Amino acid sequence: MSSTFGTIFRITTWGESHGRALGVVVDGCPAGVPLSEEDIQKELDRRRPGTSRVVSPRREKDKVEILSGVFNGVTTGTPISMIIWNVDVDSSKYVPIKDIFRPGQADFTYWAKYGIRDWRGGGRASARETVGRVAGGAIAKKLLNHKGIFTKGYTIKVGPVKAEKFAEEEIEKNPLRMCDPEAAEKAMEYVDQLRREGDSTGCEIEIKVRGLPPGLGEPVFDKLDADLAKALMSIGAVKGIEIGRGFGVTDIKGSENNDQMSMKDGKMVFLSNNAGGILGGISTGEEIVIRVAVKPTPSIRKKQKSVNERGEEVEISIEGRHDPVICPRIVPVAEAMVNLVLIDHYLMQRAKENFW
Amino acid sequence: MSSTFGTIFRITTWGESHGRALGVVVDGCPAGVPLSEEDIQKELDRRRPGTSRVVSPRREKDKVEILSGVFNGVTTGTPISMIIWNVDVDSSKYVPIKDIFRPGQADFTYWAKYGIRDWRGGGRASARETVGRVAGGAIAKKLLNHKGIFTKGYTIKVGPVKAEKFAEEEIEKNPLRMCDPEAAEKAMEYVDQLRREGDSTGCEIEIKVRGLPPGLGEPVFDKLDADLAKALMSIGAVKGIEIGRGFGVTDIKGSENNDQMSMKDGKMVFLSNNAGGILGGISTGEEIVIRVAVKPTPSIRKKQKSVNERGEEVEISIEGRHDPVICPRIVPVAEAMVNLVLIDHYLMQRAKENFW
Amino acid sequence: MSSTFGTIFRITTWGESHGRALGVVVDGCPAGVPLSEEDIQKELDRRRPGTSRVVSPRREKDKVEILSGVFNGVTTGTPISMIIWNVDVDSSKYVPIKDIFRPGQADFTYWAKYGIRDWRGGGRASARETVGRVAGGAIAKKLLNHKGIFTKGYTIKVGPVKAEKFAEEEIEKNPLRMCDPEAAEKAMEYVDQLRREGDSTGCEIEIKVRGLPPGLGEPVFDKLDADLAKALMSIGAVKGIEIGRGFGVTDIKGSENNDQMSMKDGKMVFLSNNAGGILGGISTGEEIVIRVAVKPTPSIRKKQKSVNERGEEVEISIEGRHDPVICPRIVPVAEAMVNLVLIDHYLMQRAKENFW
Amino acid sequence: MSSTFGTIFRITTWGESHGRALGVVVDGCPAGVPLSEEDIQKELDRRRPGTSRVVSPRREKDKVEILSGVFNGVTTGTPISMIIWNVDVDSSKYVPIKDIFRPGQADFTYWAKYGIRDWRGGGRASARETVGRVAGGAIAKKLLNHKGIFTKGYTIKVGPVKAEKFAEEEIEKNPLRMCDPEAAEKAMEYVDQLRREGDSTGCEIEIKVRGLPPGLGEPVFDKLDADLAKALMSIGAVKGIEIGRGFGVTDIKGSENNDQMSMKDGKMVFLSNNAGGILGGISTGEEIVIRVAVKPTPSIRKKQKSVNERGEEVEISIEGRHDPVICPRIVPVAEAMVNLVLIDHYLMQRAKENFW
Repeated sequence: MSSTFGTIFRITTWGESHGRALGVVVDGCPAGVPLSEEDIQKELDRRRPGTSRVVSPRREKDKVEILSGVFNGVTTGTPISMIIWNVDVDSSKYVPIKDIFRPGQADFTYWAKYGIRDWRGGGRASARETVGRVAGGAIAKKLLNHKGIFTKGYTIKVGPVKAEKFAEEEIEKNPLRMCDPEAAEKAMEYVDQLRREGDSTGCEIEIKVRGLPPGLGEPVFDKLDADLAKALMSIGAVKGIEIGRGFGVTDIKGSENNDQMSMKDGKMVFLSNNAGGILGGISTGEEIVIRVAVKPTPSIRKKQKSVNERGEEVEISIEGRHDPVICPRIVPVAEAMVNLVLIDHYLMQRAKENFW
Repeated sequence: MSSTFGTIFRITTWGESHGRALGVVVDGCPAGVPLSEEDIQKELDRRRPGTSRVVSPRREKDKVEILSGVFNGVTTGTPISMIIWNVDVDSSKYVPIKDIFRPGQADFTYWAKYGIRDWRGGGRASARETVGRVAGGAIAKKLLNHKGIFTKGYTIKVGPVKAEKFAEEEIEKNPLRMCDPEAAEKAMEYVDQLRREGDSTGCEIEIKVRGLPPGLGEPVFDKLDADLAKALMSIGAVKGIEIGRGFGVTDIKGSENNDQMSMKDGKMVFLSNNAGGILGGISTGEEIVIRVAVKPTPSIRKKQKSVNERGEEVEISIEGRHDPVICPRIVPVAEAMVNLVLIDHYLMQRAKENFW
Repeated sequence: MSSTFGTIFRITTWGESHGRALGVVVDGCPAGVPLSEEDIQKELDRRRPGTSRVVSPRREKDKVEILSGVFNGVTTGTPISMIIWNVDVDSSKYVPIKDIFRPGQADFTYWAKYGIRDWRGGGRASARETVGRVAGGAIAKKLLNHKGIFTKGYTIKVGPVKAEKFAEEEIEKNPLRMCDPEAAEKAMEYVDQLRREGDSTGCEIEIKVRGLPPGLGEPVFDKLDADLAKALMSIGAVKGIEIGRGFGVTDIKGSENNDQMSMKDGKMVFLSNNAGGILGGISTGEEIVIRVAVKPTPSIRKKQKSVNERGEEVEISIEGRHDPVICPRIVPVAEAMVNLVLIDHYLMQRAKENFW
Repeated sequence: MSSTFGTIFRITTWGESHGRALGVVVDGCPAGVPLSEEDIQKELDRRRPGTSRVVSPRREKDKVEILSGVFNGVTTGTPISMIIWNVDVDSSKYVPIKDIFRPGQADFTYWAKYGIRDWRGGGRASARETVGRVAGGAIAKKLLNHKGIFTKGYTIKVGPVKAEKFAEEEIEKNPLRMCDPEAAEKAMEYVDQLRREGDSTGCEIEIKVRGLPPGLGEPVFDKLDADLAKALMSIGAVKGIEIGRGFGVTDIKGSENNDQMSMKDGKMVFLSNNAGGILGGISTGEEIVIRVAVKPTPSIRKKQKSVNERGEEVEISIEGRHDPVICPRIVPVAEAMVNLVLIDHYLMQRAKENFW
């Protein structure tokens, strides 16, 4: 429980925001897979801080080192340990607020749970924790791509600004990773205004998976959508998950929501995909479609009421280095979590299919 | 993986809709807990079919028998096996459609995964599978209530009809388990009309937990909200999950979304609860608030296009015995899943807190 | 934890000696496997009481019923629930000793752990608990046999009487399941004498596995031998485990103990098998060889000192119905546990091998 | 599966003999525990190579660094990552034998399993892997000692030389960690002779645990002895496990083997401890007694027959740096594994006891 995720393909992450390093141990990776630090680095670079004006100016190189499990450029089947050293650590801004519970953060809950907390940069509860997920997910991605399975995340809403179209090639070109360049521009204006106000905004992201064969997912508790929901809800700021039509299911009737089936070129096809590619917890072979609600960055400059560990009322204004919106950096994290779930179910299915 | 859920308090369910019986094995229940079949039965009766015109007319008594783990009226600490025999099984209506993939059901995905499927009443993918969850959850509920923790589920939306107020005492009085009696009446009209049309509707339910102490939930992957999301998404028809403000987080700014803190009567209090009682994956001590989107019952009388196992296009009209809306019966199931997550985290915290 | 065993192929057992029934839920069995109650029954019959003068005269038919997971004679991939009703239950002999801790039994430890115990026939701690293991193991056996893997258990020592030869065809012909008919006769004399004295004896059994491919077992903690050791040590009366040469490793030097390798008919062969078929926790392809030490049946007629729950010194003579030696009935249980470990590792290897 | 061990208190190890580093992530450690690198280092120093003439002359400082989970000198409840850099790595002696399967080693099985292997110093299969176990076990030890539970391991047999007495204070004074100084001297002569011959010897160690309360261990599969057996059998060279009387159970009758009970000073006492402190898989409160058979070091200078990856017969003489007997270094590893099992069961019991 806690910092380990997965059954056959399994990651264990560790590390705090301002500690010496962060890392991940990937266990259960098949042997013989070509793997280099570059495979990991390119995913880490996508979530790195300091890359644009919407993300925290903290200057972390996030350079990954593989410490085990790879020999002569290929995986050996044994645990792959990866480490990312914390380089640009500056805890001085946290000293004045070290005994104050920042609103919207896990300060109070960690204190209530453990009686102690690492107040430097949020400690283990910091979004920085996700480097381990992304590093582990990069290996899952490589395995899935090899089998023709591709996961793509992007932003579809920032505050009130919605994407109106899906232009896949634009996603990585705008700093919000939005799938609609015009919406991205409007959203950037909104974000810039919030930054000036010392405020922040929530956002919505969508993840699609192509090429997934039907049959992945296990009945009852370990349904594919259940595991995806857990994986994504485990990311810090996430407050909602939708599969396929999601909360929109109350807008239509059963006769409209059911994805009817037909034949095309001798192959069974679904005539719609309200299910988001999953029925009864098992993949249908259609595109997986997931949406995720992400709360506004809680660390804001605006004054807020709070209390400290001694039970005194205080006002707090968070200076530090913080993203006014989380979407650009959460996209690769969400992709990583989806890939970790998919590879685990892929291997589970491989264990049992066509046995007899 | 698959039909087992939980780490310390753990249930394993089994059984198919039209098989001989269904059941659950509860392992890890503390010893010395007074437990009778009545404790279980009253929860099962809440999800039972045949109890009103909005639920399937299938006549199942769903009488539970405890087969092990209880001695002289108290739990012994060993596995509690419970069984519910299938009595009113009539598979004849499924015979004509046994090789057709019903739209919106798991027929196709089970077939794609396993190459074989129990077509009688949906087999393992039937909502009937949830009796095991409810029976196991009844024990979790008893343990939690003993510690002052109470979970309450109810319907807040049926198709376009929204609950406008929260009247807790009304919930169990109307057949939709809606928390607003006027809305319930309007919703019943809507449901009746759909039934006449041979159609169905989606709905939204909300679950609240009171009395949960702060500190439950584990960092990173086994966050309390992550485990709740998995637990609820694992229920058949669920397509969306929200914690606290959920997808509404994009409607407000960080300064509004953050739950500020203050002191009241010498105690720390939150001034709002947008977080839904969970910060950083750990309970805050505030009410847990979860919303769940439930798709329209896929089994409808209206004609739909589909294909069969031989790859032929067909039209299908599902007769059988089906609920036009799932909300009344999913409420106790959702409560059960929430309770199963909570007791597991409660025991996990108990294992480690105040150790040194 | 506790009553669930396995990762991919997983069993959960339940039930007490004098409760209403015992059972097992098998989860993770591949779909499409022909399976009937006869497949299970023939294994249960091998461990059944009442079959000869060395086993308890309790008259249990141990008739298994499959309640789920099998449709039209083949497995569906969903949980297979099996139940064995307790028929010949007579707890009257336990009433006079219900608050006495029987020496060598788990009476005291269950009481110390739980503060309550089902004193009827040993409750959950009874050897009768193993019916669930054997029923689950019967499915594992069927899967393994299909892949050419065969497990064989037999008795090699009863008290001071050692088997001097290995006659496989004799094993099931003598009531002690000894692999040497002459030794079996001598051992039976010894056992008969002990029964007359109201005493009991320990024994040693050996299990061999043929046809296991090299490569099963995972590095470090889930080594094949580690999982086998746990599986076998989890059987009630077991006090020792040896793999290959076992404790005999101190009798020889490294140069003798190492299994040297050579080529034969173009295939690599080991020139000895001191390793018992496992190196570094992974199967070598040679025969797996395991030995298990089984303590004397603790329930004996001879007077013994003990105490009761009120802290009073007492003398106790156990009447009841008990085997004077456990070997004949533990053999199928040990085989079942070995098969459960092997199928789980077989599927784990299948999940990952030749992936890239 | 594989490199993670434990349920509530859990370690994940990684690293190869000649890789860049080895390490362990400890998850589930209670918060607020004072912990320094010295706590870990003193245990690592006990298993370090290069400390006497019976252990490998490889010069590894084995200096541990704590990278996370400790703040201001106490544990925070989050994962504790520890790293040990490989410093004195010299793979040159392995180059000439890199495609030869060394007898008694895991070379062949890793190759058969994965199709690739890190041949440098045994890779992941090297005994060097145990530094992660010892580092993790050091934390378990600290927690247990705080509760008055103490684990002590020592050598009782080296080749034919048996310890005849138990002098606890002598154990750490002789290079074989033998509990009998005269036997230790004789054993050293034997070991020295074998080293001159280029050979090696097996040994037996014993582990005792004092202060363990009754009630630890879970019924059926996760019995305390079952988990101990797995933990110990997972150590590289172990080929046998005994609890209490172990294989000696066939030497005595049930009436002798049963540990009778009596009252002493108002407290229940056992009159013997053949059970080794465990009945029905649950601790009795008596001393836990375990014995472990350890095979001779497989790496020997004496010529041996083998084959290489190309299927050619070869002769091999292992130069490298190897211990002629494993006992002195396996003692702290065995203690660590025992402590890891005990703390996990201790916390599991804490989760559930006195709940109602």
